Amino acid sequence: MKIIVAKSAGFCWGVKRAVNMAIAAAKKNGTVYSLGELIHNPQEIKRLETLGIKKIDSINEIPKNSTVIIRSHGVPPDIIKKLKEKGIFIVDATCPFVKAIQEKAISLEKEGYPVCILGNSSHPEVIGIAGHVKDPVIVENENDIEKLPPFQKLGIVCQTTLNSELLSKFVASLSKEIKEMKLFNTICKATKVRQEETRKLAQQVDMMIVIGGKNSSNTGKLYAISKKLNRNSFHIESAEEIDESWFKNIEKIGITAGASTPQWIIEEVIERIKTILKGGETVERGLCKTT
Amino acid sequence: MKIIVAKSAGFCWGVKRAVNMAIAAAKKNGTVYSLGELIHNPQEIKRLETLGIKKIDSINEIPKNSTVIIRSHGVPPDIIKKLKEKGIFIVDATCPFVKAIQEKAISLEKEGYPVCILGNSSHPEVIGIAGHVKDPVIVENENDIEKLPPFQKLGIVCQTTLNSELLSKFVASLSKEIKEMKLFNTICKATKVRQEETRKLAQQVDMMIVIGGKNSSNTGKLYAISKKLNRNSFHIESAEEIDESWFKNIEKIGITAGASTPQWIIEEVIERIKTILKGGETVERGLCKTT
Repeated sequence: MKIIVAKSAGFCWGVKRAVNMAIAAAKKNGTVYSLGELIHNPQEIKRLETLGIKKIDSINEIPKNSTVIIRSHGVPPDIIKKLKEKGIFIVDATCPFVKAIQEKAISLEKEGYPVCILGNSSHPEVIGIAGHVKDPVIVENENDIEKLPPFQKLGIVCQTTLNSELLSKFVASLSKEIKEMKLFNTICKATKVRQEETRKLAQQVDMMIVIGGKNSSNTGKLYAISKKLNRNSFHIESAEEIDESWFKNIEKIGITAGASTPQWIIEEVIERIKTILKGGETVERGLCKTT
Repeated sequence: MKIIVAKSAGFCWGVKRAVNMAIAAAKKNGTVYSLGELIHNPQEIKRLETLGIKKIDSINEIPKNSTVIIRSHGVPPDIIKKLKEKGIFIVDATCPFVKAIQEKAISLEKEGYPVCILGNSSHPEVIGIAGHVKDPVIVENENDIEKLPPFQKLGIVCQTTLNSELLSKFVASLSKEIKEMKLFNTICKATKVRQEETRKLAQQVDMMIVIGGKNSSNTGKLYAISKKLNRNSFHIESAEEIDESWFKNIEKIGITAGASTPQWIIEEVIERIKTILKGGETVERGLCKTT
């Protein structure tokens, strides 16, 4: 019996940075307000609350002269403006990769391209990017591609966690009709590596466990990739959801986790599996040592 | 029995323009020299010879103070330079659409993109475009796509007669690896319409005749499209090649022709088919009236 944990499982650089910035700010200033969940992981949100990081849903809930943290996803510029008007101190933890996408969208607009964002229109990262340009076109799925009106030219950026297959299908379809296209493939490397590892791992094991918030966009995509290649795939948020019955006739178990899943939840899952299997199995990190 | 001729069959605008410019120049100046075939159609070349348009293969063959016509395909800038140095009078019949591609390649290079040309590397149009930039990458087929080294960014233009499926496959493949891509889809509309009509017509008839020079790039592509959808497809240069045995159990015959096929050759083919079928059939131009 073997448990193989994908090397790339868990926190990405931008999320790790945001969590550390929030904890540091809370230590310094007492309570720090996060406009929306700091990361898409309910268990980690609870832990962060105990450290003074409080999730709120509206700017109106933030007391004057307090500190707010901007999540790694970033926000539209009007949010920053409103916070400044209220005299709120801002800790900007927007992931530098996301900030670069916002800037690329602005530059495409300046060059005269209608701007298209490939990604989930209700995801804060996409909402944040969209806020930086006028009337962006948002493409979420293949259905949207078909419905797209004809464009003579188009400037394109992607949500950092976009599945590269959608990008690929989109440009293939667009290239047949369009006269000019400028594309920034802004899918971040961490996402790409995590998706590729999931793709490989799912084909090497008898069962896949994908750990991450049910509302986490990138975890959802990892689960979709895994399920497509390995029907025996499960998406869980925490160790408690694991069912003993899943492990019948299973030799190799693969584990991956979304960008907002902290290491301690991954460890809990491994411990729970070990308990079910009554120990004796090897736990390996990475794909190279699996054969 | 029905003969259906694709509306788009035959001379494109750029070729018609080049032939007219050559004939006008020959009327004015006597002999006009064409560096390579004015169009890729041996029968038309013969007719043009009788009008004073003489094909030559090298600049050295051109007498001083004579007139040379630059074909619709265009040439690399060093050819123009050499001709000017020899004091030769130039009639530039480069298709304005091709000229625009040359300019787009130059602008991509100025913007810092390595330039990629999608097209046939031995075709005069591609050689002409390539001559306008330093070290362009030329992609001819799917095999070339796989062999392409990784690029951080790439600027792309297409041969006017490129099959849009190759462009589509290329950008789909490239989008997964590249950071930035600027594409000008420079496939000309005439080519696109001709290919689409061929695609439709081939599926509606019992037999397809594709007329055009065996060395004509765009005719070759029309034949490939037709053959894929209708096994009963024939590529001919002229009416003499038609064989009576092809017409057994045939009800509907589709005809298309490449951009360098003059109308008189299309008419000869129709007459030859009528003779074989002993008349009585309808000849229709276009796809709409076929049912």
